[in-house]
Amino acid sequence: MPEASARPSREELYAWRAFLRAHAHITRVLEAELVAEQRLSLGGYDVLVQLAEAPERRLRMAELADAVLLSRSGVTRLVDRLERAGMVARERVAGDGRGVVATLTDRGLDVLRTAARTHLAGVSRHFVALLTPEQLRHFGELCEKLID
Amino acid sequence: MPEASARPSREELYAWRAFLRAHAHITRVLEAELVAEQRLSLGGYDVLVQLAEAPERRLRMAELADAVLLSRSGVTRLVDRLERAGMVARERVAGDGRGVVATLTDRGLDVLRTAARTHLAGVSRHFVALLTPEQLRHFGELCEKLID
Repeated sequence: MPEASARPSREELYAWRAFLRAHAHITRVLEAELVAEQRLSLGGYDVLVQLAEAPERRLRMAELADAVLLSRSGVTRLVDRLERAGMVARERVAGDGRGVVATLTDRGLDVLRTAARTHLAGVSRHFVALLTPEQLRHFGELCEKLID
Repeated sequence: MPEASARPSREELYAWRAFLRAHAHITRVLEAELVAEQRLSLGGYDVLVQLAEAPERRLRMAELADAVLLSRSGVTRLVDRLERAGMVARERVAGDGRGVVATLTDRGLDVLRTAARTHLAGVSRHFVALLTPEQLRHFGELCEKLID
């Protein structure tokens, strides 16, 4: 692997900005579809998915902040909103004074199942469909390399 | 371009999640470095960059929300914080009752120049250095294709 200079070249910065722009573009389109069809933000969807995949559908708030794939800084506010909507419940951990876990409710799981149809159709349309299968495979491999 | 099915396959979802995980991982590492060395969030850096590149270093709040590459939803709070720190000034647009523009101050430009060293070194280390030049070029091209 070549040693990177302290300041990226013009071509390197171009690739970096293309990465950020692609991510911003796709997540905004997916968010708009999810809000329009399901009244759920993409961040809210992210929280519901992480809880659905966790053992017993529950995570400590700190674990949840690590698990989400979008903004970690807004997780507390997101959980507040999902709790008011009955999709998530917050509970103290017995015998742990500072522990709070977020649990996916049955209603949250129902909303997630419906929202997943909108979301996954959007992923197909705005991500998968734009690359050939070979390009998509290569893109996934390059993304894996970026998780050092 | 092949027609995408409504639900991505396992391989397609793998590439999608690798994309989200790579973005989340790199932006979190860059944010941690920027906060530790410059006490500036990555979102704050993003706002300063967009203003610095705008004509007369100013943008309407709605233009700024469109221009940023990270979370658009937090832009108002970010500008509040940057304004309190003297890096951004908010001004009413003369002759436009609802218009508000954000302007980069001289102090904001100074902070940006210092922070850019930390940030760009981080981009070199956590992005550029992980791919060969050929992979990086290809990655940038694939990202361009994703901006439909």
